[in-house]
Amino acid sequence: MSVLVVGSIAYDSVETPWGNVKDSLGGSALYFSAAASLFCPVNVVGVVGSDFDISKISFLKKRRVNFDGIYVESGETFRWGGRYYADLNIRDTLYTLLNVFENFQPKIPTQYKKAEYVFLANIDPELQLQVLDQIDKPKLIILDTMNFWISGKRKQLDEVIKRCDIILLNDQESREISGKPNVIKATRIISEMGPKVVIIKKGEHGAMLYHENKYFFAPAYPLEKVVDPTGAGDSFAGGFVGYVAKFGKITDEVLKKGVIYGSAIASFNVEDFSFNRLINLKKEDLEKRIKKFKELTCFG
Amino acid sequence: MSVLVVGSIAYDSVETPWGNVKDSLGGSALYFSAAASLFCPVNVVGVVGSDFDISKISFLKKRRVNFDGIYVESGETFRWGGRYYADLNIRDTLYTLLNVFENFQPKIPTQYKKAEYVFLANIDPELQLQVLDQIDKPKLIILDTMNFWISGKRKQLDEVIKRCDIILLNDQESREISGKPNVIKATRIISEMGPKVVIIKKGEHGAMLYHENKYFFAPAYPLEKVVDPTGAGDSFAGGFVGYVAKFGKITDEVLKKGVIYGSAIASFNVEDFSFNRLINLKKEDLEKRIKKFKELTCFG
Repeated sequence: MSVLVVGSIAYDSVETPWGNVKDSLGGSALYFSAAASLFCPVNVVGVVGSDFDISKISFLKKRRVNFDGIYVESGETFRWGGRYYADLNIRDTLYTLLNVFENFQPKIPTQYKKAEYVFLANIDPELQLQVLDQIDKPKLIILDTMNFWISGKRKQLDEVIKRCDIILLNDQESREISGKPNVIKATRIISEMGPKVVIIKKGEHGAMLYHENKYFFAPAYPLEKVVDPTGAGDSFAGGFVGYVAKFGKITDEVLKKGVIYGSAIASFNVEDFSFNRLINLKKEDLEKRIKKFKELTCFG
Repeated sequence: MSVLVVGSIAYDSVETPWGNVKDSLGGSALYFSAAASLFCPVNVVGVVGSDFDISKISFLKKRRVNFDGIYVESGETFRWGGRYYADLNIRDTLYTLLNVFENFQPKIPTQYKKAEYVFLANIDPELQLQVLDQIDKPKLIILDTMNFWISGKRKQLDEVIKRCDIILLNDQESREISGKPNVIKATRIISEMGPKVVIIKKGEHGAMLYHENKYFFAPAYPLEKVVDPTGAGDSFAGGFVGYVAKFGKITDEVLKKGVIYGSAIASFNVEDFSFNRLINLKKEDLEKRIKKFKELTCFG
């Protein structure tokens, strides 16, 4: 079962207490693909500038990530610069240069239109709607967004929320969308807006799944050293969607395991800069961590 | 197996978006007792003013809570007033009147000195040391504290930490004690200071247990309505210590279950003002919630 992702492709420059990288691979579509491709083929739709070195992502091609939907425009690739501190909850954005991403109009290649699993990464909800209008009815639409669109394009965002099956949010975003400070109540209210499944990403506090009036919690994997938190949310989404797509059916148990796989992948991702840790991640290391998650949460 | 608790007894006045109470029963020793007495007998050491109406806690006596260590001093009982907002993470203290608690010198009745389980609620670490000096070597010393003592009486606090077996902290307190922003690292470092077991209370994000290089996570029970968060930490401690004392042995599995019972009791406690919800809490309601916790965290 293959997955379609529409999102950003970027060059990130990141400083953390553990070091720094300049113009490393980033963007929601790439983080997502590096994670989801551990489970199933991925079709990417995005835009890069003429400065983008496609050979740098050739490892993804080997993992059945298809680049036919990556368009090269004249100009520079989207660039983001950020700085994290010892307390990783604090982040400064140093710059955001949209470049060719500013005029991105997602065009879905014909061969992608029958996608069964569609991940709408965090981009302008108007573009997310354009994507949905170009594809056949997929089995599952998974939506990500951010505070910028919640306050700036609420009407369009509400329309995408109505049309999606699963929404991923952080706790603050769930409060903003629902107007409820209680995240448990916020989650239910958002589900009533459309999505059957709501997932709240809580960073170091883990993730919460809501489905048919039931909740499930996964902790963040305990790490003494987080090298770079960039892309944690998108690699979580990639692990989750990849796992669910691989199974091809939506049951409580598959969703739960999806959240655990997403959490495990995100925990690997933050152990190194960019998505370097996901490039050569071994299946046995992933399964070992899944087993650890069991010990972290299950009791007799 | 009985438990000794030394802590505060107070009259609380609390306002929340769901209502308010004036001079309701409060204080760490009472919240703890209301919870722990669901599992085992509790011996309380504390001080009240001559205005304290002991008949109001007679329900605790029926649950084998012993008041021989509650001293009545002339003057008024400790009073605290607070206001919570729709976002329960924000709390204003309206007043703190220590009254008779200001000169509290814990005197352990002879019949309590052989206590096997001792909970040192959040009071001045100098007083906590006085308690330890008055009792025989107990099986387990469980310690609670707060930022006020971490910054104000660090040397004495370090001495209590060295002598305790289990410490309960919130994430911010663990960062302050260890000087490490990463709570996972903070936990290990604090354990190296003395306590074999470190428990991090994370409020709406649940609780984390550290024991012998292993971690365990319990979520907070998902509640759409938290009526009054006062005493959540102390009722958690009461549930945890009560459960562990009832079992009388310290294994990974007992500690895990203790954290789950503590979380369940705390979740009941916040459903009403003061510890009203714990007064008539039925065993079957508690067991039902424990079962729910399993569904919330375990996966196949």
